[in-house]
Amino acid sequence: MSAEKIVADLASTARIAARTLSTATGAERKSALLAIAQSIETRSAEILSANEKDMEAARAEKMHPQMQDRLLLTEERVKAIASGARLVAELPDPLGIILRESTLPNGLELKQVSVPFGVIGMVYEARPNVTVDAAVILLMSGNSALLRGSSSAQHSNAILVQVMRDALATTKISPDVIQLVPSEDRATTKALLTARGKVDLVIPRGSAALIRMVVDESTVPTIETGAGVCHVYVDEFADIEKALPILINSKTHRPSVCNAAETLLVHKSIAPTFLPMALKALSDAGVIIHADATAQKVAEKFSIASTAATQENWATEYGVLEMNVGVVDSVDAAADHIAKFGTNHTEAIVTENKEVASRFIALSDCAAVMVNTSTRFTDGEQMGFGAEIGISNQKLHARGPMGLEAMTTTTWIVTGSGQIRI
Amino acid sequence: MSAEKIVADLASTARIAARTLSTATGAERKSALLAIAQSIETRSAEILSANEKDMEAARAEKMHPQMQDRLLLTEERVKAIASGARLVAELPDPLGIILRESTLPNGLELKQVSVPFGVIGMVYEARPNVTVDAAVILLMSGNSALLRGSSSAQHSNAILVQVMRDALATTKISPDVIQLVPSEDRATTKALLTARGKVDLVIPRGSAALIRMVVDESTVPTIETGAGVCHVYVDEFADIEKALPILINSKTHRPSVCNAAETLLVHKSIAPTFLPMALKALSDAGVIIHADATAQKVAEKFSIASTAATQENWATEYGVLEMNVGVVDSVDAAADHIAKFGTNHTEAIVTENKEVASRFIALSDCAAVMVNTSTRFTDGEQMGFGAEIGISNQKLHARGPMGLEAMTTTTWIVTGSGQIRI
Repeated sequence: MSAEKIVADLASTARIAARTLSTATGAERKSALLAIAQSIETRSAEILSANEKDMEAARAEKMHPQMQDRLLLTEERVKAIASGARLVAELPDPLGIILRESTLPNGLELKQVSVPFGVIGMVYEARPNVTVDAAVILLMSGNSALLRGSSSAQHSNAILVQVMRDALATTKISPDVIQLVPSEDRATTKALLTARGKVDLVIPRGSAALIRMVVDESTVPTIETGAGVCHVYVDEFADIEKALPILINSKTHRPSVCNAAETLLVHKSIAPTFLPMALKALSDAGVIIHADATAQKVAEKFSIASTAATQENWATEYGVLEMNVGVVDSVDAAADHIAKFGTNHTEAIVTENKEVASRFIALSDCAAVMVNTSTRFTDGEQMGFGAEIGISNQKLHARGPMGLEAMTTTTWIVTGSGQIRI
Repeated sequence: MSAEKIVADLASTARIAARTLSTATGAERKSALLAIAQSIETRSAEILSANEKDMEAARAEKMHPQMQDRLLLTEERVKAIASGARLVAELPDPLGIILRESTLPNGLELKQVSVPFGVIGMVYEARPNVTVDAAVILLMSGNSALLRGSSSAQHSNAILVQVMRDALATTKISPDVIQLVPSEDRATTKALLTARGKVDLVIPRGSAALIRMVVDESTVPTIETGAGVCHVYVDEFADIEKALPILINSKTHRPSVCNAAETLLVHKSIAPTFLPMALKALSDAGVIIHADATAQKVAEKFSIASTAATQENWATEYGVLEMNVGVVDSVDAAADHIAKFGTNHTEAIVTENKEVASRFIALSDCAAVMVNTSTRFTDGEQMGFGAEIGISNQKLHARGPMGLEAMTTTTWIVTGSGQIRI
């Protein structure tokens, strides 16, 4: 059977099954998630033994240790997956929310209501926890899930999907709302990305290369997640007591994630005071520094190593302890730099001046602007969403951290008593 | 200069100019629109004379009279374009609206605020009025407009853009927020569709073929507009007094538009009473009938001509006075038929039974469900939006009629006092 046919069949089965979700109550969807959580805990041994098969293969092919760690499941990690499902089950029902309501002069009653997309595809890499995390978020928001994970996690994904489907078989929700897309053949990914009309949305989760591939090749609507070249701008009116911890937290708290900062921009008026402290703190934290001419002079004066920042440096998402440092003339110049090199993810300003903060916000074009706080707060759980399926880096549909609500669309319900258009 | 370079330069100029929109107040954007409206009226003669050049070319190449009519501008039509701009200027400002607001336990203040996309491309066909209609909606929502019209309207579009830019030159908004993409070369369309990162959104407006091309070829996010195979389902609990006018209005009020109905489905219990009346009324209105076996028998009995509806018929958006008629066993069967042949646009149910209506709504997967009213009400102006840039036929971002609000995205503004992530 061709990859197109395989995916089309899975999508078609999933769409019919999705009706058991769209006609279910929030309480019924919640019960289904709790059943899934329970089964995952109960069948932990089976899950771990399937995962061991993937781990054996990974060791045999000498997978990078960091990747092996992502692939690995432990008893604790399985418990955490189940707990995650229970947390999602406790979230407010995102469906049936009346977003707008009005009565027209002709008596028609208009309601805009949140409804599921229908069938959503996930394309992701080696972490098997995504299989469950994504499935429960999609189910709770009323959508069927087509899961296309990595072939390196195939045994883990297969058992996790089986456990979830078995759990659903005891509920009012059809097990067919969760479908594992075979990962042996790369063609199934392509087939999923081009199943326009059959799949309503595809979300990539993983490396920049994976996201780029999905965005380039997909004819199904997608939500781009990921890349973040985030900036911290320390304004002339900054409180240095705040600026320093914000800078260090933004860069070093978890350098590998997309909301970590890559570039520090400092207003020229505060540079003489702030730059020496900042460079020393970064250097002490083990951060390699790429600096513009002004910042390099300061670094030299204090015997702090730095290289001259290139155009490529300014545009790089390091993901490790490296940072660009530059001096700018004004908030507008900072915004110009960010417009040129940023990726519209998260930008922070440190300032006590509200007008400057407003100007920075108006000139920024990103998912989140942080005023006097760390870039690391662009995060669904930190923002109180309770769950996150990814961080949207695009402007269409959802921007920034995506929770349950982002997995819904809307429908207009227009109720009349025989009105016709004149 | 290559088409890619032309479009990249226009987009870059438009993005810088967009700042004069994102930092402008609603009142300033409104003034800009009023200046545009005024200039269009004042310079009506120039506009008509440019349009005459396009009309001459159209006549020379024997363009279809209907297409010629779409291309034609008259003094009245120019006035209507100016009035349209004034209407948009009066609408509530869609920017800076606080969509969500909360304070986190750590004291961070979260606000989700509506902001412009930035640079939006429009790809459209021969109607020169779209040049102004689209530009003013985009400007009012804070976006720069890259306008790619048809080469057959090139003189009309050029003068309209010139008039709008000249009007902006007298305001605080940069004229560069409106850019005409050259239409002599087809390659500029392709360049616009692939200017990912430079253009934030592309919206097609025109024929099904144009929309399909944009959706297939674009790597820039797009919003699919258009196709509607809409159904009217007359339930067993229908009030026939309402059903008949709703059916006739849905089919015949303006058959060429996307919210016109193409298929009538009748519950078997009411078919003996309703079908004869419905078929007669359709026939009297000049509607050609394609029917299933049951409906054909009724038609024959009353000497009403019909052909046997094929699979292709059920899936066709006629756009003219033709309609499919079928009998179904239940509301679920109606929903099944619609799921198979519908285009997720607008579906109507006529019923006095609220539970059946709810079931129909839950099983429908479309932009708008009409309960006891005509499919023709899926329309931005009818729904009270005041302006419409198109009807979205997709689930991502906007669904159904799109007004100013649909041309905005959001940003999170997180304000702290030095908080860092622990």
